[in-house]
Amino acid sequence: MPITLLDSVAAMQQHSLALRTKGKRLGFVPTMGYLHEGHTSLMQLLRPRCDVLVASIFVNPMQFGPHEDLSRYPRDLERDQQLCEAAGCDVIFHPTPQEIYPAGFHTHVAVEYLAETLCGPWRPGHFHGVATVVAKLFNIVMPHVAAFGQKDAQQATIIKQMVRDLNFPIDIVIGPTIREADGLAKSSRNVYLSPEERLEATSLYGALSLGKSMIEKDARDPAVVVAAMRQHLEQHMRAPEIQYVEIVNTRDLHPVEKIEGEILMALAVRLGKTRLIDNFMLKV
Amino acid sequence: MPITLLDSVAAMQQHSLALRTKGKRLGFVPTMGYLHEGHTSLMQLLRPRCDVLVASIFVNPMQFGPHEDLSRYPRDLERDQQLCEAAGCDVIFHPTPQEIYPAGFHTHVAVEYLAETLCGPWRPGHFHGVATVVAKLFNIVMPHVAAFGQKDAQQATIIKQMVRDLNFPIDIVIGPTIREADGLAKSSRNVYLSPEERLEATSLYGALSLGKSMIEKDARDPAVVVAAMRQHLEQHMRAPEIQYVEIVNTRDLHPVEKIEGEILMALAVRLGKTRLIDNFMLKV
Repeated sequence: MPITLLDSVAAMQQHSLALRTKGKRLGFVPTMGYLHEGHTSLMQLLRPRCDVLVASIFVNPMQFGPHEDLSRYPRDLERDQQLCEAAGCDVIFHPTPQEIYPAGFHTHVAVEYLAETLCGPWRPGHFHGVATVVAKLFNIVMPHVAAFGQKDAQQATIIKQMVRDLNFPIDIVIGPTIREADGLAKSSRNVYLSPEERLEATSLYGALSLGKSMIEKDARDPAVVVAAMRQHLEQHMRAPEIQYVEIVNTRDLHPVEKIEGEILMALAVRLGKTRLIDNFMLKV
Repeated sequence: MPITLLDSVAAMQQHSLALRTKGKRLGFVPTMGYLHEGHTSLMQLLRPRCDVLVASIFVNPMQFGPHEDLSRYPRDLERDQQLCEAAGCDVIFHPTPQEIYPAGFHTHVAVEYLAETLCGPWRPGHFHGVATVVAKLFNIVMPHVAAFGQKDAQQATIIKQMVRDLNFPIDIVIGPTIREADGLAKSSRNVYLSPEERLEATSLYGALSLGKSMIEKDARDPAVVVAAMRQHLEQHMRAPEIQYVEIVNTRDLHPVEKIEGEILMALAVRLGKTRLIDNFMLKV
């Protein structure tokens, strides 16, 4: 059966309601399109866990700041459609911005505290935009299970918290970060990188690997590990704008005083016009 | 069949999911308990529109300000249960505050702009608390249709906006204000009034009736009508704290410059320790 492409909220809701009434289990992978193996791995992860697999492709204006890359964010629906089909999707929900944010839209969902650290201060309003669009998509697609990538660790944690706090009857599955052969985390934004920046971009993975190996060799002071990771970035890139290198607990994403338990090492670096993020989750 | 009393989120969600899978249509009336004919009229309104009728009884701490009447808000579960049963409810959802707001709760739903006028400035955070708990209850009860009272006009408008903005697949029905014989709007808080205050409290209805009759006699300047309504309140009460008398459009609850179209006359008065609100909706 060819993949079903739906672009209106009403059509998607009716489709999902009809499937649910038939007892079908719905899986959902929300994306901003320009798909890569990170996205398709999430689809493959959910495929055996549901009867009907839905992907959304929607570049969400609400999660972009006024000076961010909304207008130049890469788009290729035809290619995305082929990748969704190959990954086993049954339905693509592909609404316009006007369909999602009609005139007179006034509501947002805020997950406080977890949005205060890491990317939060660098992208004011970003996680409101993420939480709001995901709440909307959950009500439109009505899935039983939804998948998000570990690459966007703060987003994944905030979505899990929102689902718990607002009692969405949805299981959240987090899929592992998919990387290029040299360690760079796959991202739709990697297409922005010049050949030189692309080479330098592996330093994010290098810094995380260095931090991990220090912790495996019993480093427990986050300040010492963070300093070494920053130094690695500075030594391996010509002019990086290091936005943050932080070691936080995985529960509420606030900095740890001592490295123990389940921690997240996360960093964000701006390379020219491209902002890259990456993280490792470790159990100590 | 006796009414079913559920107090856990998981039990309520399982109950609703099972009913939905059987194709049952669920109706929902959220309340803070201490029920009166305003509440039961909403139940009677939904009874013929659904297969299974659920009422929630939950005094929501998140919608009370720090100096408001949360601790003394009246409660009587046994009587509420009888009234629900008599009004045709099948299920009462009656969770504890800890069940709804477990430790580490961090999320809120905000409907901006519509919360800026009327009660908004007088009850900071109130409508965040209302929108958040209703979003939660919608995800827990998963109704097809839910009813709210016109007495809380701003709440009703905000809920309708939230449902539209977050794409909840739920029909919202607004039931008319139910009044005592002398015009006082029924409210759980009327029990706070002393006999003298109870007599004075009819002035709210009196002021609204005066405003309505002026508009019916072609008054179109909201300032003139509001001034007459305020004067009525001041003349018929000994020491009213008039919080607001406003004439707003019903769309976004902002003041009108000219009385035309569909408008809401709304007022809030504090009588001793009791805060009373009331409103008329008019088509001009």
